[in-house]
Amino acid sequence: MKLKGCLLLVSCAALFSQSTTVLAEETYKLRLAETWPTGMPLLDSTVQTFADDVEKMSNGRLTIRVDSANKHKAPLGVFDLVKSGQYDMGHTASYYYKGKVPNTLYFTTMPFGMTAMEQHAWYYYGGGKELMDKVYQPHNLLTFPGGNTGVQMGGWFREEIKSVDDLQNLKMRIPGFAGEVLARVGATPVNIPPAELYTSLERNTIDALEWVGPSLDLRMGFHKIAPYYYTGWHEPGSENMFLFNEEKFNSLPEDLQTILVSAMKNASFNMYIEATSMSTVNWASMLQDFPDIQVRSFPPEVLKALKKANDELLEEHAANDPLAKEIIESQRDFASKARAYTLISDYGYLETTKDL
Amino acid sequence: MKLKGCLLLVSCAALFSQSTTVLAEETYKLRLAETWPTGMPLLDSTVQTFADDVEKMSNGRLTIRVDSANKHKAPLGVFDLVKSGQYDMGHTASYYYKGKVPNTLYFTTMPFGMTAMEQHAWYYYGGGKELMDKVYQPHNLLTFPGGNTGVQMGGWFREEIKSVDDLQNLKMRIPGFAGEVLARVGATPVNIPPAELYTSLERNTIDALEWVGPSLDLRMGFHKIAPYYYTGWHEPGSENMFLFNEEKFNSLPEDLQTILVSAMKNASFNMYIEATSMSTVNWASMLQDFPDIQVRSFPPEVLKALKKANDELLEEHAANDPLAKEIIESQRDFASKARAYTLISDYGYLETTKDL
Repeated sequence: MKLKGCLLLVSCAALFSQSTTVLAEETYKLRLAETWPTGMPLLDSTVQTFADDVEKMSNGRLTIRVDSANKHKAPLGVFDLVKSGQYDMGHTASYYYKGKVPNTLYFTTMPFGMTAMEQHAWYYYGGGKELMDKVYQPHNLLTFPGGNTGVQMGGWFREEIKSVDDLQNLKMRIPGFAGEVLARVGATPVNIPPAELYTSLERNTIDALEWVGPSLDLRMGFHKIAPYYYTGWHEPGSENMFLFNEEKFNSLPEDLQTILVSAMKNASFNMYIEATSMSTVNWASMLQDFPDIQVRSFPPEVLKALKKANDELLEEHAANDPLAKEIIESQRDFASKARAYTLISDYGYLETTKDL
Repeated sequence: MKLKGCLLLVSCAALFSQSTTVLAEETYKLRLAETWPTGMPLLDSTVQTFADDVEKMSNGRLTIRVDSANKHKAPLGVFDLVKSGQYDMGHTASYYYKGKVPNTLYFTTMPFGMTAMEQHAWYYYGGGKELMDKVYQPHNLLTFPGGNTGVQMGGWFREEIKSVDDLQNLKMRIPGFAGEVLARVGATPVNIPPAELYTSLERNTIDALEWVGPSLDLRMGFHKIAPYYYTGWHEPGSENMFLFNEEKFNSLPEDLQTILVSAMKNASFNMYIEATSMSTVNWASMLQDFPDIQVRSFPPEVLKALKKANDELLEEHAANDPLAKEIIESQRDFASKARAYTLISDYGYLETTKDL
């Protein structure tokens, strides 16, 4: 027998001088599938902390079993696992599913797009959430921001990139939309499983790769073989997401829904803080232990070519799909206003104080 | 009779086929004093949302009565109101209390200090929280981050500042430590109640003032009379705080404590996002409606003089107080590492893409 909200209500008033309500409380269990392997820093740990928070806040009424990719074996199948109800929740990134649902592309990060805080402002106050709902609701999925890495670095290169010519036939591990952009300017984007990245770079199977940033790059060791570390252009604020089976979420009592939403938002915030902290500490280690690392930015000519390719691809997407057009225009409009403010605030502060 | 955790535990097992615990639940009421007036955008609204969240998450077991400064009449007395137990909680900013407890100065924002995310990383992962606890625990107060404004602007000036000479005897509304810094280079900092700021500037009682940034400056109207708007140096990431009477917090059940901590962290995150959004929208309005606004940065000569004065003042503080020394050194060490990362991530991205 499924007990849905025990109806037994007993007033303590007869026993105590203060009126107190006694509620029989059902306990709930949710299963969460995450894209990440067990123990992955920053990502798995964010999800584990989220599950602990929910259990504590609900005083044990709601527990969440977290299954890593080691268990469910479908790291990039979390969308389907949650849609079908095999799992109640997921933790993944939206752009992994662009092959299945093209408009999921826009809700992680975009090349030359918004930084984490600009994107958060767009999502919560600029219409972003409503557009993301339009993409996911036909699949009976609810989404919630799941944690930001901050600006991702442009990657590790064995040779310096001085012009667009240097990109011709350059074999680079860079997945997703950014790979399409690079292909359009003449590079050869490839995707390689994380476990094979170091060896591929070492054996010259690839010439370059991007991963995340100092937060997660240090342990990968790429700096030992590809000393040119480029500043970012392709993932200026990658936000992961929580997925929820809509029917399952709606079946929960309202207080547990609110607890879940609060805990997910905290997880999102905390991951961004933890990523910043890890990058700070790891970058200091890398600078100290590997003084040969060369930080570079792509020359303006290269960035202009990438931006042009990026804008052309977006135009094509917008021409093919009215919802894509709506999303692209909403992002472009908000981003231009947000960037105008960022340039007089964060950028202005950093620019004028960096050489004092 | 005070009912402290109703002890009546009844198992539903006898009634239903599923084991369910019945807990008699006490309800709790907390009183919160905020520094802000009723209806103040961004600040009062952050606290109201926090109180609503707590009530929903606790299913009504915990309610928070928010008293604005209009009610308790002590906007800058929240520290004492919570320490004495007249209120259980507060929402205010740490640096308002530097006259009473000098080391509270360091936990809002510091001139030439960390940005919001750098400071969050320091607070949560770099020892900041432990140092803040050292300052507040002797007063039986717990503190929690309470929301960031982002980089505050350097203020509105009627005349352009071209050199340190232009600062001599300049009457500027700028409170706190930044005022001390300005005084040391020859300006005359004054403090004026918010309601009198516009008139003071209009009637030449002051030559310049700083308030927050586009988020809250637009409604004040300063741009109509002082067109030079300077980028920030003195408050690169102002974080408000929640204060809690320690005994009161510890008397609450653990699940409600966790709910409170989660809701406070959400409030902190959300205020930063809302401030970014408000600044984005308001700055776009100001640019459109007041094309005469002139954005400027202080010349390097001026910033160097301010930085030198700032460092001298910090040296004096550190020499006078071992805990101040510990805090200043912890911030300086973490900030230098965090900034090295910020410069290759956020700054690198903004710098290389701003002219594409």
